Amino acid sequence: MSGPDDIRYMKLALHLAQRGLGRVAPNPAVGCVLVAPESGRILARGWTQPGGRPHAEVHALNKIGGKAKGATAYVTLEPCAHHGKTPPCAEALIEAGVTRVVSAMTDPDPRVSGKGHEMLRKAGIEVVEGVLEEDAYHLNEGFVLKVREGRPLVMLKLASSLDGRTATHDGESQWITGEAARNRGHLMRAEADAIMIGSATAIVDDPTLTCRLPGLGQHSPVRIVADGRLRMQLTSKLVQSAAKVPLWILTLPDGDEDRRAAFLDCGAELIEVPRGQGGLMDMKAALQEIGARGITRLMVEGGSRLASSLVQAGLVDRIDWFQAPKLIGGDGYPALAALGVQKMDEAPVLERRQVLALGEDSLQRFSFRRQE
Amino acid sequence: MSGPDDIRYMKLALHLAQRGLGRVAPNPAVGCVLVAPESGRILARGWTQPGGRPHAEVHALNKIGGKAKGATAYVTLEPCAHHGKTPPCAEALIEAGVTRVVSAMTDPDPRVSGKGHEMLRKAGIEVVEGVLEEDAYHLNEGFVLKVREGRPLVMLKLASSLDGRTATHDGESQWITGEAARNRGHLMRAEADAIMIGSATAIVDDPTLTCRLPGLGQHSPVRIVADGRLRMQLTSKLVQSAAKVPLWILTLPDGDEDRRAAFLDCGAELIEVPRGQGGLMDMKAALQEIGARGITRLMVEGGSRLASSLVQAGLVDRIDWFQAPKLIGGDGYPALAALGVQKMDEAPVLERRQVLALGEDSLQRFSFRRQE
Repeated sequence: MSGPDDIRYMKLALHLAQRGLGRVAPNPAVGCVLVAPESGRILARGWTQPGGRPHAEVHALNKIGGKAKGATAYVTLEPCAHHGKTPPCAEALIEAGVTRVVSAMTDPDPRVSGKGHEMLRKAGIEVVEGVLEEDAYHLNEGFVLKVREGRPLVMLKLASSLDGRTATHDGESQWITGEAARNRGHLMRAEADAIMIGSATAIVDDPTLTCRLPGLGQHSPVRIVADGRLRMQLTSKLVQSAAKVPLWILTLPDGDEDRRAAFLDCGAELIEVPRGQGGLMDMKAALQEIGARGITRLMVEGGSRLASSLVQAGLVDRIDWFQAPKLIGGDGYPALAALGVQKMDEAPVLERRQVLALGEDSLQRFSFRRQE
Repeated sequence: MSGPDDIRYMKLALHLAQRGLGRVAPNPAVGCVLVAPESGRILARGWTQPGGRPHAEVHALNKIGGKAKGATAYVTLEPCAHHGKTPPCAEALIEAGVTRVVSAMTDPDPRVSGKGHEMLRKAGIEVVEGVLEEDAYHLNEGFVLKVREGRPLVMLKLASSLDGRTATHDGESQWITGEAARNRGHLMRAEADAIMIGSATAIVDDPTLTCRLPGLGQHSPVRIVADGRLRMQLTSKLVQSAAKVPLWILTLPDGDEDRRAAFLDCGAELIEVPRGQGGLMDMKAALQEIGARGITRLMVEGGSRLASSLVQAGLVDRIDWFQAPKLIGGDGYPALAALGVQKMDEAPVLERRQVLALGEDSLQRFSFRRQE
């Protein structure tokens, strides 16, 4: 049976889990809290460590010498049951003497999926499942999508004026939003495994795409450019820094060999993606390639064509939309390119999950409605 | 001296005043609360009545037979001091035996402007000024603008998708927002003195522009169409209903005489507006004409060209922006037409005053920053 305390401790475990976002792929970001059931005292807090090891349960157990006799363990994901690079966490919890495990969701990984819970029950441990399941799902949606569909969670970040424009008709886009919003955008980069832009944005803006928040420099995600014809400059900041921070270039087959070689020389990785409808890059295949390389959370930062091609293909899961209280007008650049929506009921519909004030700007967070 | 009770009663008076919005022009919408100072008991509530008479103070005093010995009067605007259609309210308060008057703001009307407060003080009444002044100013901004600048408050209402589109590229615009947002829009019509659209919207949408909320039908505002070349159809719903609900058509000089006569025959009023820059209608002159006819609060409902011409001329005071959680894409119709913004710091900046959830839609309310 679960109670109000279970929810309180699980919330804490979810907060701990969040520390791993953007740092543990292809593993899930998990949190674990060990509690002495009578006093309610927290014995140890753990979360999946950078690179994915140790897992949250072992990280917490290590802090108290692996001894947790009679304790309750709160875990945001079913403890693993398989021998991978490390022994299974379910086994570690049993050995530590835990007598009750409260878990938020079943691991979608077919190697685990219920077997972790089963192993615990067989050892005589009380197991409560599904506490704050939706929150846990939301947190690890990238991991779930990668397991189930082989692609990462796609989070589109947009920053526009109130009328949905990202630049003036002269192309000026710096800065639409204020400092608080821009810092928040950098924090979102740190929580992503990779960040993707289109070739036009790479060419026009020449961005670095690193996380430049103080202390978070080493959290820079893999940088990905969708550049079917290898149009971006070899002298761009992205290419020039490819030896230090990974740069993957999604490109169409049959590209110029010399140009391909030049990019490879600079340290970029080239990923061939087949053509889809209309001869353009097949975005679904592109995401499969990205997922196959271990990316679970992909942030898409621009521009309007890449954004609309992903929306049109039904491949965007979330939108984080920063809005500045400004008007740019119909002659500015739109945040989204054409979607080909003819009837109002064909327009993609989102679900608003959060509204935040960031200085004078606002951040609205949406999930796409799943067509089940 | 003012205290926390003063603020409480003034808030009530402001709420009462609001009942007059859209019904009292060219008068201000004023609220009045009469309070017995010792017990704090409310003796009477008053607000400016439809058509502007009686004023709030007299409306409240009438409810208790004009006797308010020793009472405190809370008024959202300085009581009038001049003999107009009725004797001055300051005189009525003195005669009623009020001993203290708490007032939110000075009347900008040069015939009053301080004289009301002065008349009260001369009669030995304690006068406290400026309680919740900003709220009172916001409420009567239309009246203030009409007195000071001869034009109404211009409130732009927009309803768009998240990406700032008001219709698909096929022109379908019904319905972007849901029922709660649409009802709110009708309520806003009831609080306006007049509602304005451009000729393209009149031709394409053929709207009625009446307030269709149950019980508010008689609050329909004056309907105004900016139609420089008299392009709208004589068979349109607006023209056909002109004999029942006022229809004003803003038009350029030298229009076709027969066509003008036909509109006049249908009961529409034609208002000639001079040409401004580029030969288009001078919107500042148009607003002066509208103000001269007693309109203090003008709601602008469409389309994108009318909206952008008013924004460009610096003539929009507020924006009420309904957003539906949908994406229409760059091939849809924009909420605002071209503004000619080249540098980001030329973009008009607004101040967010309120964010409301209306079903799945949101309503954000903005004021334009005044360039003082």
